[in-house]
Amino acid sequence: MLKKLAAEFIGTGWLVLGGCGSAVLAAGFPELGIGFVGVSLAFGLTVVTMAYAIGHVSGCHLNPAVSVGLWAGGRFSGGELPPYVIAQTLGAIAGAGVLYLIASGNGDFSLAGGFASNGFAEHSPGGYTMAAAFLCEVVLTFAFLFVIMGATHGSAPAGFAPLAIGLALTLIHLISIPVTNTSVNPARSTGPALFVGGWAVQQLWLFWIAPLIGGALGGVAYRWLSPARPVAVDISGD
Amino acid sequence: MLKKLAAEFIGTGWLVLGGCGSAVLAAGFPELGIGFVGVSLAFGLTVVTMAYAIGHVSGCHLNPAVSVGLWAGGRFSGGELPPYVIAQTLGAIAGAGVLYLIASGNGDFSLAGGFASNGFAEHSPGGYTMAAAFLCEVVLTFAFLFVIMGATHGSAPAGFAPLAIGLALTLIHLISIPVTNTSVNPARSTGPALFVGGWAVQQLWLFWIAPLIGGALGGVAYRWLSPARPVAVDISGD
Amino acid sequence: MLKKLAAEFIGTGWLVLGGCGSAVLAAGFPELGIGFVGVSLAFGLTVVTMAYAIGHVSGCHLNPAVSVGLWAGGRFSGGELPPYVIAQTLGAIAGAGVLYLIASGNGDFSLAGGFASNGFAEHSPGGYTMAAAFLCEVVLTFAFLFVIMGATHGSAPAGFAPLAIGLALTLIHLISIPVTNTSVNPARSTGPALFVGGWAVQQLWLFWIAPLIGGALGGVAYRWLSPARPVAVDISGD
Amino acid sequence: MLKKLAAEFIGTGWLVLGGCGSAVLAAGFPELGIGFVGVSLAFGLTVVTMAYAIGHVSGCHLNPAVSVGLWAGGRFSGGELPPYVIAQTLGAIAGAGVLYLIASGNGDFSLAGGFASNGFAEHSPGGYTMAAAFLCEVVLTFAFLFVIMGATHGSAPAGFAPLAIGLALTLIHLISIPVTNTSVNPARSTGPALFVGGWAVQQLWLFWIAPLIGGALGGVAYRWLSPARPVAVDISGD
Repeated sequence: MLKKLAAEFIGTGWLVLGGCGSAVLAAGFPELGIGFVGVSLAFGLTVVTMAYAIGHVSGCHLNPAVSVGLWAGGRFSGGELPPYVIAQTLGAIAGAGVLYLIASGNGDFSLAGGFASNGFAEHSPGGYTMAAAFLCEVVLTFAFLFVIMGATHGSAPAGFAPLAIGLALTLIHLISIPVTNTSVNPARSTGPALFVGGWAVQQLWLFWIAPLIGGALGGVAYRWLSPARPVAVDISGD
Repeated sequence: MLKKLAAEFIGTGWLVLGGCGSAVLAAGFPELGIGFVGVSLAFGLTVVTMAYAIGHVSGCHLNPAVSVGLWAGGRFSGGELPPYVIAQTLGAIAGAGVLYLIASGNGDFSLAGGFASNGFAEHSPGGYTMAAAFLCEVVLTFAFLFVIMGATHGSAPAGFAPLAIGLALTLIHLISIPVTNTSVNPARSTGPALFVGGWAVQQLWLFWIAPLIGGALGGVAYRWLSPARPVAVDISGD
Repeated sequence: MLKKLAAEFIGTGWLVLGGCGSAVLAAGFPELGIGFVGVSLAFGLTVVTMAYAIGHVSGCHLNPAVSVGLWAGGRFSGGELPPYVIAQTLGAIAGAGVLYLIASGNGDFSLAGGFASNGFAEHSPGGYTMAAAFLCEVVLTFAFLFVIMGATHGSAPAGFAPLAIGLALTLIHLISIPVTNTSVNPARSTGPALFVGGWAVQQLWLFWIAPLIGGALGGVAYRWLSPARPVAVDISGD
Repeated sequence: MLKKLAAEFIGTGWLVLGGCGSAVLAAGFPELGIGFVGVSLAFGLTVVTMAYAIGHVSGCHLNPAVSVGLWAGGRFSGGELPPYVIAQTLGAIAGAGVLYLIASGNGDFSLAGGFASNGFAEHSPGGYTMAAAFLCEVVLTFAFLFVIMGATHGSAPAGFAPLAIGLALTLIHLISIPVTNTSVNPARSTGPALFVGGWAVQQLWLFWIAPLIGGALGGVAYRWLSPARPVAVDISGD
């Protein structure tokens, strides 16, 4: 169990360092910056890479909404849920901390730029309302868990789940960075928010509640849909 | 059968929410927007992700032209065709509805922007004629079905079909967004058009007829070409 | 054999329509255009998609330099070489023809824009000399065949060759579009050049000679390097 | 052994020619240039393509930090370490040499542009301090080796390691090009630096020390974490 939690800690740290790091360090670089396409790719690739690396250790959830959704879908035990969520959240904070150390090595850096925190209303990148942000996070986390449940199902092609799941996260970012800066992951939201404080912490509730609701619904929906067959518990699908 | 139709409904909704959503919400974001590359990637990834998730449930067609092409190619039963097409079309409308709710959470949003509808002549993004649009949709849907038939053939490597097919859709968008905003999928065209009304509905006929013709030709062409061997019915190729 | 040649014809047509089509129709679209990244992705995806679709039919060479390189590497029979090269070249011309019909549906289109032809010196996108262009085409086709030989070797993981080979073509374009508009494929060069005429035809010799030399060297080099084990003839590696 | 070293030589040359080549030739092309996203993709694809091609020959390390990390993780013999590192470094220099010949075929080219060398402080693309650069290179090489160790573990899905590892390199570049121009590979740093001389050689020490430390830590960390099971030595994971 310690090794599983260590894997979730490292993996979620990688998700925040890689995803938020690409946003903070590289998205807006003059002329050559990677933009939202690059950030979307980066978030997805954190999951692709870690799912192949630690899928066989911890299942590579890296996300409380994934753990809750898999539990709601009957693929994860309730007893492991609390330690997983704690390890994920601590890993996200650690990842944000490493990113802070690197980013602050540039004299122009300031936490006032948002540090890739999630937000709505006046803190939505594109100025979307709280209701739109809530709906968006619920629907996208629903679809994320639906894909995770399906791609790790025993009837899906073996070994491809990390690609399908990571690329689902890329897709989700391609859609929704302008709306909420994209969470679908309460741990990812918590890491940067603790460094920024203020509004980022005040809006954090939405990025816990909406993804957890969406994730649970996605897990339940797929469970109803899925053919009765032995299923894989492991997110890497093998 | 109900579960198959539910899978097609959810999957086609995801295709429209993800593909059109990336176009409406993120393509033109100032400086950091994802452009046509990001939209092309998003459309393709909706298919990659859903094909791994529900390929083993419904075959993951998500597109009347795919269902018709597979039927023409001898891979899908005519009796299932009508319910599949209806479920796909309803799913696309639902996906467009969810996108409308999210997008209208931004005060600057207007359906007059096109809502990612397909069009030709004065409604082609790059001003292409109706004839060019028709040819483009026929040829690209032909190639799409040719790839689908081949990648799901029993002689193709197992498990890779969702990647090949989804990335084919990305490629098709990289070519043709300037021509018609890219359909190759009558359901995807119908969803946003019903919200926009007017010209979008008036031009909808082309985005049913051209993809269905192209898809049927692609299915027939590959059937002639293919080596005689047992084939997989499932789009996920496993 | 007829079916093999039909597959090479259609596949090479798809390569030119998809790759050159993305360049002609979408690369320079105002603000949202796909740029060289999108064109690189498109060329690679034509190979990824067709290799899964027809790899088990014809081997999916789509390129005289690939056929010659595989022959030099001991993987392809000399007797099949001439008909393959002819089918590839005719397919490329057909693909360019379809692209011409679509592109000319836009009043602003002109063949004087180059129609994605390959060129050097004053016709190199970035103004590179003939010597640099020649070296570039030799080296990149060498590497392309080296990867093809390796990824289809019996010791390589089965089923992944289409991804490795298609993404190699994407990589090659990411490097060299500014130098020659990237050929590494004499058939791909011939298709658009016949429509443009003039300089494009006059410079065509380089895009036959350099890729054929590079491809043959790559095939021979890998043959020397490779472990003695039964190998797959099929480009799809399964 | 000669064939293994030849494979490492060619593969590392390809990494430098492809990765640095895309940066030097194509990143900043007016309007259509590939930017940091394209360069990130190119670096990753050099590894994806070569890992499928020569993974079964030499393991496809292409990087002294990878060889050292795998040795620290118990997957590579200390006796092979020196010849591997020498072959990699010579290959990187050769790759930079070929790139120099091509790039200098453009009259505007100058080594004063940096030739894709790695740097910190005033030679960091975004002006990051030496401390930030050092931390960044250690952490990212740690994660790189962690992913390599995991994706090639006997419990990971077979055949996917080249994708996971190559895409990890893409991700690493998406994060850190602005900080150091991204090394995580002492051989890749050495190639261009020898052509540029001056500051590039003076700063080279950091791009040997930091990646080697990070790589060794990553190898050791995963070794502690990994389940006891027979493991694959081959980077291609099959």
